[in-house]
Amino acid sequence: MASKRVAVIGASGYGGLQTLRLLHEHPGLEVSFLGGERSSGKRWSELVPFLPLAGDPVVQTPDPAAIAEQADFAVLSLPNGLAAQLVPPLLERGVRVVDLSADYRYSSLAQWQEVYSGEAGQLSRADAHLCAEAVYGLPEWQPEQIHSARLVAAPGCFPTASLLGLLPFLKQGLIDTRGIVIDAKTGTSGGGRAAKEHLLLAECSEAVSPYGVVGHRHTSEIEQLATRVAGHEIQLQFTPHLMPMVRGLLATIYCRLRDPGLTAEDCGTLLASAYRQAPCVEVLPVGTYPSTKWVRQTNRALLSVQLDPRTDQLIVMVAIDNLIKGQAGQGVQCLNLMAGLEATTGLPLLPFYP
Amino acid sequence: MASKRVAVIGASGYGGLQTLRLLHEHPGLEVSFLGGERSSGKRWSELVPFLPLAGDPVVQTPDPAAIAEQADFAVLSLPNGLAAQLVPPLLERGVRVVDLSADYRYSSLAQWQEVYSGEAGQLSRADAHLCAEAVYGLPEWQPEQIHSARLVAAPGCFPTASLLGLLPFLKQGLIDTRGIVIDAKTGTSGGGRAAKEHLLLAECSEAVSPYGVVGHRHTSEIEQLATRVAGHEIQLQFTPHLMPMVRGLLATIYCRLRDPGLTAEDCGTLLASAYRQAPCVEVLPVGTYPSTKWVRQTNRALLSVQLDPRTDQLIVMVAIDNLIKGQAGQGVQCLNLMAGLEATTGLPLLPFYP
Amino acid sequence: MASKRVAVIGASGYGGLQTLRLLHEHPGLEVSFLGGERSSGKRWSELVPFLPLAGDPVVQTPDPAAIAEQADFAVLSLPNGLAAQLVPPLLERGVRVVDLSADYRYSSLAQWQEVYSGEAGQLSRADAHLCAEAVYGLPEWQPEQIHSARLVAAPGCFPTASLLGLLPFLKQGLIDTRGIVIDAKTGTSGGGRAAKEHLLLAECSEAVSPYGVVGHRHTSEIEQLATRVAGHEIQLQFTPHLMPMVRGLLATIYCRLRDPGLTAEDCGTLLASAYRQAPCVEVLPVGTYPSTKWVRQTNRALLSVQLDPRTDQLIVMVAIDNLIKGQAGQGVQCLNLMAGLEATTGLPLLPFYP
Amino acid sequence: MASKRVAVIGASGYGGLQTLRLLHEHPGLEVSFLGGERSSGKRWSELVPFLPLAGDPVVQTPDPAAIAEQADFAVLSLPNGLAAQLVPPLLERGVRVVDLSADYRYSSLAQWQEVYSGEAGQLSRADAHLCAEAVYGLPEWQPEQIHSARLVAAPGCFPTASLLGLLPFLKQGLIDTRGIVIDAKTGTSGGGRAAKEHLLLAECSEAVSPYGVVGHRHTSEIEQLATRVAGHEIQLQFTPHLMPMVRGLLATIYCRLRDPGLTAEDCGTLLASAYRQAPCVEVLPVGTYPSTKWVRQTNRALLSVQLDPRTDQLIVMVAIDNLIKGQAGQGVQCLNLMAGLEATTGLPLLPFYP
Repeated sequence: MASKRVAVIGASGYGGLQTLRLLHEHPGLEVSFLGGERSSGKRWSELVPFLPLAGDPVVQTPDPAAIAEQADFAVLSLPNGLAAQLVPPLLERGVRVVDLSADYRYSSLAQWQEVYSGEAGQLSRADAHLCAEAVYGLPEWQPEQIHSARLVAAPGCFPTASLLGLLPFLKQGLIDTRGIVIDAKTGTSGGGRAAKEHLLLAECSEAVSPYGVVGHRHTSEIEQLATRVAGHEIQLQFTPHLMPMVRGLLATIYCRLRDPGLTAEDCGTLLASAYRQAPCVEVLPVGTYPSTKWVRQTNRALLSVQLDPRTDQLIVMVAIDNLIKGQAGQGVQCLNLMAGLEATTGLPLLPFYP
Repeated sequence: MASKRVAVIGASGYGGLQTLRLLHEHPGLEVSFLGGERSSGKRWSELVPFLPLAGDPVVQTPDPAAIAEQADFAVLSLPNGLAAQLVPPLLERGVRVVDLSADYRYSSLAQWQEVYSGEAGQLSRADAHLCAEAVYGLPEWQPEQIHSARLVAAPGCFPTASLLGLLPFLKQGLIDTRGIVIDAKTGTSGGGRAAKEHLLLAECSEAVSPYGVVGHRHTSEIEQLATRVAGHEIQLQFTPHLMPMVRGLLATIYCRLRDPGLTAEDCGTLLASAYRQAPCVEVLPVGTYPSTKWVRQTNRALLSVQLDPRTDQLIVMVAIDNLIKGQAGQGVQCLNLMAGLEATTGLPLLPFYP
Repeated sequence: MASKRVAVIGASGYGGLQTLRLLHEHPGLEVSFLGGERSSGKRWSELVPFLPLAGDPVVQTPDPAAIAEQADFAVLSLPNGLAAQLVPPLLERGVRVVDLSADYRYSSLAQWQEVYSGEAGQLSRADAHLCAEAVYGLPEWQPEQIHSARLVAAPGCFPTASLLGLLPFLKQGLIDTRGIVIDAKTGTSGGGRAAKEHLLLAECSEAVSPYGVVGHRHTSEIEQLATRVAGHEIQLQFTPHLMPMVRGLLATIYCRLRDPGLTAEDCGTLLASAYRQAPCVEVLPVGTYPSTKWVRQTNRALLSVQLDPRTDQLIVMVAIDNLIKGQAGQGVQCLNLMAGLEATTGLPLLPFYP
Repeated sequence: MASKRVAVIGASGYGGLQTLRLLHEHPGLEVSFLGGERSSGKRWSELVPFLPLAGDPVVQTPDPAAIAEQADFAVLSLPNGLAAQLVPPLLERGVRVVDLSADYRYSSLAQWQEVYSGEAGQLSRADAHLCAEAVYGLPEWQPEQIHSARLVAAPGCFPTASLLGLLPFLKQGLIDTRGIVIDAKTGTSGGGRAAKEHLLLAECSEAVSPYGVVGHRHTSEIEQLATRVAGHEIQLQFTPHLMPMVRGLLATIYCRLRDPGLTAEDCGTLLASAYRQAPCVEVLPVGTYPSTKWVRQTNRALLSVQLDPRTDQLIVMVAIDNLIKGQAGQGVQCLNLMAGLEATTGLPLLPFYP
């Protein structure tokens, strides 16, 4: 069977680099178009000497017509707000899109405009119907919709880890939906490749600090799907922390069991059963806690649960690689489903340790 | 005024090294005895070529009589269980002690024996009266008792950060005492200098992971003082995480305000007012969040609060250096009080950044 | 074609873990025996929860007869001195061996006994003939001999990087063979997984230091092959430095051109031509210098040259991953040749960046 | 005796921050003027919440007249080229200057214009007489000239470490002046606080790479003083490498002894004797090699020598903190001499380890 052709837009950022690396060895998908704004016109080997691509292509301006001619799918790895300019013309021309930005993660355009008010202020969008149409690209939750979608909005690292840990318990109605706390820890690569003072090694090394405390944008994104799955509105606490490391994300989720009769093992069994068909999710035995290093450069999510019988507090721990399962690997997993391939095709699941 | 003489026992571990470095420039205290078990008989410069001491002393066996002859105070930086063997004979001989281990942090010997059952099993202790007598060495909470104490049990990094953030709110009865969550992040130096596989750079770097989830020993220590200050029993969630960095500790504390009328600024003001007389504690403006790097190698605790008006969840963030304010600096601060000096004498409060 | 069966001995150390990870996805080789000394009798998933193996095997004592029954090849990842006890009985039973230790890297047993005098003192060896027979496993230099060898002694990270940079110039007689300086920088994983104080994150982080200055064991190993290729005895300076990172090795090699007429571009062309048939070696354009991050978790060596026309000093820079091209990947590359497969089968050549 | 008043210009960069931190506790110097270009008009606590200054001053435009009114000395921590605009008017007004940039490190303006051609192209300088007058601020080599200087050009980290290791041997004529190789390893803070992609943690972590190979600017600066001390022209090889750490610099210097009769101990003795009057330099025993961690956040240089009797190659290792002895501490050491104080006044010499 011939490989499907994929356009990668935003190729030299971290999301683009991961996507290219993953597709490099992919048996069913091939990169047919390399697009970028800032890097347009430059030869690939000058931009990225360490990741040679066949034919050493020149990065192209992401022109929808040219993309449509050369690709069946497009993966967009662009700053928030830019994807929304490219998606409508691509869909019109029959290109199916996986967007790694936040532009289509809310089913309501109005909510996006409120949460991303800065970006919204610089951009006039008239694609509320596409927001409503877009499928939220968490393959563990709605694989069928992703399979047939024209437009998939792949969630980033924070919502992915948070939702994988929370949704099974919310769906079963097992936890108190008030008082949920998500304390998340992430590597600095989540901040992207553009130079920023606070992401310098000299600033981040030997430093741990919270940011975006109360009201971080991803709070509402997590709440949107949590509310949908729970069946009633959920407001929770999400606090990200910056870690002195490149990649990896750990979400420690605190919530309270409704039914004091359950044990940690029961909760682990429930999780494992929820993800029985999910080849990228694995639940560790009770008492074994995940390290971000165990999933580094893989598309795997490692989950573990623990319970305090004194307080009925349930602690769900989720580790992922923020750039793979939390970004580009998720995108490829969605592409696989859209292309009718096995979800894990071309995706590494085991780490090189240490 | 002549300097007081201090014996430092356990000199070549991290706690000992910090204590020696702090006392090196101290105007009112001087090291008069260098003791250690494993390093006994060795010349200092061979053990520690990077921290020259006057006269290049030989490390001595910590014999109580010899210590009493040469020192007014002793700082014990020993593994749990060992201090309890040395403290009774030292006190008998009139040496006042600051113990950096957990041996006297519980006012009940029985509770220590339960929480530290491994150590207790190898050691017969008959010093319940000393457990009851020992003062918990958190200088921000009971400076007068420390001033006149014979025996001070200085708390370590996790309880120090947790309690500094929680106690003012508990004392005022402002927060719900159920559902308190402390998510703590610490550097690897907290695990000590003895070689352990899981603390190798190859294992810890690029890795974030929880450990001791539910039932970590420091939970009960935090609860002991929290209960005392709140006036009724408190059970809380304490979850430590290992960070890929040497030093620094951040505690992110989640709790719920009882009075929904308060603002984040009100809570900040309350904190600042609680620590008005505490020269080592500083409260940051609302919206400025502490980094462990801002307090590295200082005896300062940086606090910040934030509030989610939707959920009345209060978030208190506390950053300290785990080896200074969370260990040796705390010990010196206690020594200062015991010796009638200013609390901050000889203690660095500002970092070299970055 | 059926996969060849491979025994991996020393499975839970870093060399073993890399080997298992590489063979996990290998299309022509499969792990059929898992052996270890310390971990013998333990179930794999308890030892290494993050790298699930099919069937979750129990680690076995490395008994030669059992290995011979179950495997065509054995990869030994054991401390120096131990391999020499296992290799003779394995060869007798027809198992072809790739040894990752130093035991067979010298063609003279006497020299091994001199350089590894500590290990030699505890072990009586009578296998001088095997030392003479063993092929030095640098696939870029004698692929044919490796192809037909019974016993391959794969070089470690320092000799691999040093020799890849030096040998082409020595072979052509282009550089002064006196005054060669190799300044090498390595991550801490090269020190292995056993707990050692000086490899703790708290000790290594924010630290760069030389070690083994003058007379490091690998000096003589590098000199052995350099002498062989140059055709006359070579004595050089090799100085390793420990870097605050997990993996990666950079060798900066300083030597003097004999012919002042050559340019840096000439030297680069010469290098590229020497490695035209070597799919794991790539020469960067003059002016582009390799980073260890560009080869992390790959079996690739990146080389670059620069020349100071004022002094005729030639600088050759070589970056490899110390655990892949400098250890386990090298071993698999040798196995591939021995099994009649393409050298790069199953070996990653491109990094996940960053 | 009243404290001398010091203006710090370029206060919020790394050089400025170190200078302020050092002067904060200085018994003989006090900061009287805080200047900066980009940060002008901003309140200090908003710029730098972690380093409170008395009175929380507003950063001022560095106007020479205002500086002269408020300060006896000025420390300039500005990008290359900018100091040369400020120095002439300051000297005219009687302010004595320590410049941390390269603007006055060459005694010949023409050479500066050649080496810093980019900066020179944007700036017309007519202060060749000041280049000739300026004293090179390496306090270990010309303390008297610094004492009486109006203008001191303090060398940065690379020349400081390189020269401290080389000069004693050059002065005594003990080494071959051809073939000297300096392989230097530095933390990323040397690249400053301005955001640059290649200094992001995500880029630098787990990465070691050379840069500026052949022809790096500091080569000529090192050669200038080496030539002066040796008495004849010296051309050497200087190769910097970027390390995955914040601060610290190690220079490994390779050269050849002229007199084969000397031992490593002889060379160590010679070094120690050269620095007998230098309180910030310490020579380690032969066989003990310096770590950058041993000098972190101190103004100390640690030196060690080793010798290969086979090749007469001498290896001199020098570790410093790049921001203290390699920048701001050096500046304060010069200020101390200029102000008639002890060289080490207010300068930390011992590290907090680890």
